[in-house]
Amino acid sequence: MCHPSCVEYFFWEAFVVNTVNVALIGLGTIGTGVARILSEYADRITDAVGSRVVLAKVCDKDLSRERDITLPAEMLTDDFERILDDPSISIVIELIGGLEPARTMVLRSLQNGKNVITANKALLAQHGAELFDTAKKHGVTIAFEAAVCGGIPILGTLATSLQANRFQSIHAIVNGTSNFILSQMDEAGTNYQDAVNEARRLGFAEADPTMDVDGTDAVQKLAILARIAFGVRVDWKTIPRTGIEAIEAIDFRYARELGYKIKLLAVAASTATGLELHVSPTLVRETNPLARVDNAFNAVRVTGDCVGPVFFQGLGAGRMPTASAVLGDLIATVLGRTAITFKALELWEENRNGIAVKDPREVRGKSFLRMRAVDKPGVLHEISGVFGRHGISIASMIQHAGENRATGEHQEVKTPVSLILTTHDAREGDMRHAIDELERLDCVYGKIVRIGLLD
Amino acid sequence: MCHPSCVEYFFWEAFVVNTVNVALIGLGTIGTGVARILSEYADRITDAVGSRVVLAKVCDKDLSRERDITLPAEMLTDDFERILDDPSISIVIELIGGLEPARTMVLRSLQNGKNVITANKALLAQHGAELFDTAKKHGVTIAFEAAVCGGIPILGTLATSLQANRFQSIHAIVNGTSNFILSQMDEAGTNYQDAVNEARRLGFAEADPTMDVDGTDAVQKLAILARIAFGVRVDWKTIPRTGIEAIEAIDFRYARELGYKIKLLAVAASTATGLELHVSPTLVRETNPLARVDNAFNAVRVTGDCVGPVFFQGLGAGRMPTASAVLGDLIATVLGRTAITFKALELWEENRNGIAVKDPREVRGKSFLRMRAVDKPGVLHEISGVFGRHGISIASMIQHAGENRATGEHQEVKTPVSLILTTHDAREGDMRHAIDELERLDCVYGKIVRIGLLD
Repeated sequence: MCHPSCVEYFFWEAFVVNTVNVALIGLGTIGTGVARILSEYADRITDAVGSRVVLAKVCDKDLSRERDITLPAEMLTDDFERILDDPSISIVIELIGGLEPARTMVLRSLQNGKNVITANKALLAQHGAELFDTAKKHGVTIAFEAAVCGGIPILGTLATSLQANRFQSIHAIVNGTSNFILSQMDEAGTNYQDAVNEARRLGFAEADPTMDVDGTDAVQKLAILARIAFGVRVDWKTIPRTGIEAIEAIDFRYARELGYKIKLLAVAASTATGLELHVSPTLVRETNPLARVDNAFNAVRVTGDCVGPVFFQGLGAGRMPTASAVLGDLIATVLGRTAITFKALELWEENRNGIAVKDPREVRGKSFLRMRAVDKPGVLHEISGVFGRHGISIASMIQHAGENRATGEHQEVKTPVSLILTTHDAREGDMRHAIDELERLDCVYGKIVRIGLLD
Repeated sequence: MCHPSCVEYFFWEAFVVNTVNVALIGLGTIGTGVARILSEYADRITDAVGSRVVLAKVCDKDLSRERDITLPAEMLTDDFERILDDPSISIVIELIGGLEPARTMVLRSLQNGKNVITANKALLAQHGAELFDTAKKHGVTIAFEAAVCGGIPILGTLATSLQANRFQSIHAIVNGTSNFILSQMDEAGTNYQDAVNEARRLGFAEADPTMDVDGTDAVQKLAILARIAFGVRVDWKTIPRTGIEAIEAIDFRYARELGYKIKLLAVAASTATGLELHVSPTLVRETNPLARVDNAFNAVRVTGDCVGPVFFQGLGAGRMPTASAVLGDLIATVLGRTAITFKALELWEENRNGIAVKDPREVRGKSFLRMRAVDKPGVLHEISGVFGRHGISIASMIQHAGENRATGEHQEVKTPVSLILTTHDAREGDMRHAIDELERLDCVYGKIVRIGLLD
């Protein structure tokens, strides 16, 4: 069936179909890693996809910055329109992070018929619905393995190999900065601020690590995990979160006495009354594999109704692990696997599996509480009365006698006692009320530190 | 563009395209699990693929056996030809295990244009080349996630999400029976035979567990892992393997003293001089996540040049974990993901990445050796001389003094001493010669127990 354009067709086959042009937005740490692999290891990408994958354009707002990669001048641009206007570019890799201009760039790429690969969890958690819907409308895809747990191929696995399961729970360490800080505090016995400084010094924390240590990063990732594993679309801002800022060195000592480690866990658990979601520092039993995930590692423990528990551990951040995920997505997008999975996941649907997110106040769980209280008769009675009134049952209590400290004036001041309680399963709403009430008592000083408890 | 066959076309769309007929061969433990999920949870498969996936035929040579599932009589057959002859069946799930008739059934299914899903590692390790080639020739696919590590989605992950990496090494616990036996011996201090009996009693070992404990099962799985991760086709029979039969309770005590656990490891490691492959009991440092994989769990630690180390743990066998893998493959086959991945992997090629398997004698590694020797002057000198002549350097030595046992005749008999040695890195060929020579010495009794050593 040869026709007049036959020669042209073969030319096109050989030189266009077999070359895939890719653009990269954001030449930061990860962008440099991706650019390097695409340049230096082009052969392995070609091997994997059977096409020549070419980095055609790299867009960054600051092209003058010193970088440990040299790219041809004609590849570089600070004008995003040059990517949009280039019809030969079929895939855009967004690695600038943050909400804007990332959102606009991704939307416009999709609207221009370009497939998108992104590592931007904030963008997906905040604007996922709009982006997935736009991709669907324009017949293109968004791949985002790198957005959650960097090098651990968790999203792809939940969405493909483990797809026959109904997932029962996910317990995950998704923030490497927090995990590094907690490991430091535990191993070196340092206080919180020293551990943060050490994490900064070693490059595991940014100058301002607020979003990492206050749980924001973790709830954004949890929202994405919940979307993939449970089919729910949830506003990440509504997921209860507690950060690690209030944890002190002493908590690790108590945890050790009780046989636990302290980890910042992102939890999604399917129950008869809905999906429980939260991020909180948690005492994890030492025998649980999650307890042994130290420093900058991430880990995910998924339980499926067929497969049982499956545990994944790997580097959650950093240039090369994240680049591995981005390039895995690139290969899958070129090969067409992403198109199949993206269509099957129906991420643009409001709620795929009919699972509702549970009212956080109704979630039940065990807690570890540490408070400072006056050391005088009747205090324990008063405190335990508050728990009793809220229907919370105390499982164990440790009271450390107050030390008598000498002051400058040679007077003895009785310091408050540290009171450590663990509770049996209690309703979250009741626990919050009890803590509020306890913090208003005259005999309790300051804020109560609360850590979840996972057996 | 409606034409005369338009109505027929729509009919076909609605009733043929949207129904996928599947046949199952082998209604044993796993087959029953797969049949149950396909019957009871048909909705979740339909949700995942957007087509109705129907279990159309189930073939088993013994239909009279009692099973905890009731299937319609018209679905059941003991005649494989009825599956082959049915053009509506596009996917055959082979779960009978073993080489024949599995090989013939899979080949004929492929030749008849049917896609195959199998959990049969022996078949793939032995006849993989023939099967993959046949599939390619007939434009169909073979999916086999369930063949290695049951519920752990390791093959899919290596072949997709982590594909941007050059893999550096795989260290894996792939045989649940052996791992259960080793865990039993370690925890309960039982001897090998008691642990085997306990594993049998609890259903973790078959009546004849030879293939599990002698490393056969593990090398077959290693051959498949090496095929996917390193692109090499290797005859599994040429992979050096040592089983766990010679391990004694005392080895766990020494291991503990040194800070190690004993695991049966399958190892593939890429070196400048080729790919090292072997299965052997190994002392694994307690801080290595593999050391904490107990009982029937499987685990894989993969290191990629971009992603770094990634660790996976899950149930390696059993009805539902294996069914999870089979059904994940089924979904991927129906959706078309398997076709893409199968084509990209080029498993029919002799050697995809130009990596050669290293001569096992050239592999270097550390060893732990336990031997029984006469307790008399000069013996240590004689033994260390053998190591010296073969260029093997001893790292540490423990000699436990022989106990003086009273015999029935009130004579004292001096029992041999236990001599425990660890070596520095040594060439495998040298180590084998040294052990042969040592076992021929008059002062050494019986066989030397050798365990690898992984730091």
